[in-house]
Amino acid sequence: MRDKIDLGVIGGDGIGPEVVAEARKILRAALPEGVELTETEYPFGAKHYQETDEILDDESLERLAQHDALLLGAVGGDPADPRLAGGIIERGLLLKIRFAFDHYINLRPVRLWPNTTSPLANPGEIDFVVVREGTEGLYTGNGGSVRTGTVHEIANELSVNTAFGVERTVRYAFDLAQRRERKKLTLVHKKNVLVNAGVMWNRIVNEVASEYPEVSVDYLHIDAATIFFVTDPSRFDVIVTDNLFGDIITDLAGAVTGGIGLAASGNINPDGTFPSMFEPVHGSAPDIAGTGKANPTAAILSIALLLRHFGFEEAAQRVEAACEADVVEAGGAPRSTSEIGDAILARLA
Amino acid sequence: MRDKIDLGVIGGDGIGPEVVAEARKILRAALPEGVELTETEYPFGAKHYQETDEILDDESLERLAQHDALLLGAVGGDPADPRLAGGIIERGLLLKIRFAFDHYINLRPVRLWPNTTSPLANPGEIDFVVVREGTEGLYTGNGGSVRTGTVHEIANELSVNTAFGVERTVRYAFDLAQRRERKKLTLVHKKNVLVNAGVMWNRIVNEVASEYPEVSVDYLHIDAATIFFVTDPSRFDVIVTDNLFGDIITDLAGAVTGGIGLAASGNINPDGTFPSMFEPVHGSAPDIAGTGKANPTAAILSIALLLRHFGFEEAAQRVEAACEADVVEAGGAPRSTSEIGDAILARLA
Ligand SMILES: CC(C)[C@H](C(=O)O)[C@@H](O)C(=O)O
Ligand SMILES: CC(C)[C@H](C(=O)O)[C@@H](O)C(=O)O
Repeated sequence: MRDKIDLGVIGGDGIGPEVVAEARKILRAALPEGVELTETEYPFGAKHYQETDEILDDESLERLAQHDALLLGAVGGDPADPRLAGGIIERGLLLKIRFAFDHYINLRPVRLWPNTTSPLANPGEIDFVVVREGTEGLYTGNGGSVRTGTVHEIANELSVNTAFGVERTVRYAFDLAQRRERKKLTLVHKKNVLVNAGVMWNRIVNEVASEYPEVSVDYLHIDAATIFFVTDPSRFDVIVTDNLFGDIITDLAGAVTGGIGLAASGNINPDGTFPSMFEPVHGSAPDIAGTGKANPTAAILSIALLLRHFGFEEAAQRVEAACEADVVEAGGAPRSTSEIGDAILARLA
Repeated sequence: MRDKIDLGVIGGDGIGPEVVAEARKILRAALPEGVELTETEYPFGAKHYQETDEILDDESLERLAQHDALLLGAVGGDPADPRLAGGIIERGLLLKIRFAFDHYINLRPVRLWPNTTSPLANPGEIDFVVVREGTEGLYTGNGGSVRTGTVHEIANELSVNTAFGVERTVRYAFDLAQRRERKKLTLVHKKNVLVNAGVMWNRIVNEVASEYPEVSVDYLHIDAATIFFVTDPSRFDVIVTDNLFGDIITDLAGAVTGGIGLAASGNINPDGTFPSMFEPVHGSAPDIAGTGKANPTAAILSIALLLRHFGFEEAAQRVEAACEADVVEAGGAPRSTSEIGDAILARLA
C-alpha cells in the first residue's frame, strides 16, 4: 500500500473551486493514518485562459504528469464569450488531459440513494456502473471541414475505434462485473447502423466473455437503452460503452438518480503510467458560482473513487457511507456548499 | 387538394403487419370524401429475406418510388439469427428507403396525453416535435474497417454533414416552429466536442434564425438535453438535431410520454420528389408478435402524419383526436390490437 499521495488540484471555473475545497477536506480526513498527502494547485480553466492566453501547454502537462493523481472541479466559462466558443477549454484542457494521460476508462457509478428524489415515479433500486471508453470514438478530434460558406460545405467527424482500445476497456468492465454481486454486463452501442465500430465492439465483448463464464452479457442499442434508463434502470449492473454514448447516458443516469449534483467520475489510467483524474460529472454552473449553492457531494464521491483507485477500499467506503448518510438525513433541505462538506466531514470523524 | 392517394404498404415483420392492418382501417375511414385510395402490399422484411434472399432490389425500389406515400409497420427479425446480424434488414430496407427517397426530415411528434402513465413523477405538459435530419451524419455508411483480428484492427465511422443537408433541415424546423404557438427552437448537438459538424449546425441555425425573428432559439448539448427530457420536458417546442442524436432522443421522448407504443413518425421528402414514408417509431417486437398485444396507436398516429403531409389537416386532427380520446378513456386497460383499432375507428364515425 502506498504511503504518499502527491495530488495535483485544478479547481477550474465557476463552482469548480468551491466543490473542490470541500472534497479536499474530506480527502485529508479520510486518508488512512500514515499516508502523506501533498497538494499542488493549478490555475487552469476558462478564467486563466482569458487572463493569460494559456489553456494547457506542454510544460504544464509535463508537471501534471508528475503527480500521483489529479482532482478537477469543473471547467468552462461564460458560454456567451466568443473566445470560449467551440468548446476550446473543454477540449484544450479536459480532453487534452484525458488523452495525454491515457484515461481510457471513464468510470461513472450510478446509484439512487434512499431519500433522494428521482424524477421517476417508480425508480426502483438503482446501482450500476458505466464504464465509458475514454480515448477513442468521436472524441479523437479526427474530423474536418473547410469553411466555404457555400451549400457544398462538408463537415466530417470521424469515430476511431481500435481493437486495442476497445478490448482493454471491455476487459476492465468484465473485471468489474466479475467482482460485483449481480455479475451482469450490458454493451450499449448502435451496431445495426454503426456496423464497423459496433460489430467490432460486439465481437470483442463476446470474445472476452468466454473468459468470464460467471458474467452474463447482454446488448442494447443506445436508443433502446435510454428507454430502460427511465422505465427500468434497476436492470443495469455494469454498462460498457463508447465515449459518446457514455457521455450521453451518464448525464441521463445522473438525472434519473436525483441530479448530477451527486454524480462522480474517475478518468482512469489503470496501468498507472499516468495520473488518473477524478472529477464530478457536473459542469462549472456559472449561474450559481459564488452563491454557495453548489452541492459538493459529487466532488466528494469522486474522492472515494480516488481512494479506491489507490487501494484504500475501506476509506473509500467510509466516504461513500458518509455521503449516503448525509443525503438520506438531509433529504434535500437547502444547505450551503460548506455546510454539506462539513456535515459529511463530521460523519467521517 | 389531391383526389387520389396511391399507397405502398410494407407490413414488415413481427407486430408490423398487425398494427398496419389497423392503421389502414383508419386511413380508409378518415380520408375526406372523394379521395380515392389504392393500396399495394409488399412482402419486404426479415422473413421475406430469409425465404427469398431478397431485401430490396433496385427494381422493387423503383416500384415503391411510383407510389404517393408508403406505410411501414416494422422490420427486423429474430436477433439471434446470424443471417440477420449486423442490422442487415434495417440498413438494406429501412435506411435504404430513407436515403433513396431523400427522406431528409424524420418528423417525430412527442406528446403526453391526459391519463397516460409517464414514468416521470411530474412530467408536466409535454408537446413538442423532434425534427431529426434523415440522410446524413453517422447514417451514411461511410465507415470502414479491415477485420484482422489483431489488436491493431481499426473500425472507423464517418459522420458526414453538408451545409446543404443541414440547412434544408434547419429551415424545415424553423418553418414548423413559426407555425406553432410557442415558436421555440432548440438545437441539440455536441458542438464542444464535434467541432466540425457542431459548429456548422450551430452557424446555420444562427443564420436561418435571422429570417425568423419571431422564433426564439436555444442550444443544448446532447448530454444535457437528455437531463431535461426527464427533469423538464415541457421546456421543448421544436427540437432540431442530427440523425443519431435524433434517434436517441426520440426513443427517450417516447418512453417519457408513456411508451413508444404511442410514438409516430414520418420520413418526409418535403420536396415531393419521392414518396414519404410513415411508420411507428417502435420495432417489430418479435416477443409479442401474434399475441394480439401490440398497440396500433403509433401506427394510426403515423396515418395522421400522412394525412397532414397531403394537406388533409382536418382529417389528421380527427385521427389524432380519436387516438387521444381513446387513450384518455381506456386509461391503459388491456385490449387487443384490433380492439384498440376498432375503438379508434368508432370514434371517427
Ligand atoms: C465537457 C465535455 C467535453 C465532457 C465530455 O463530453 O466528455 C463532459 O460532458 C463529460 O461528460 O465529462
Ligand atoms: C432500426 C434503426 C435503423 C432505426 C434508426 O436508427 O433510425 C430506428 O431506431 C428508428 O429510430 O427509426
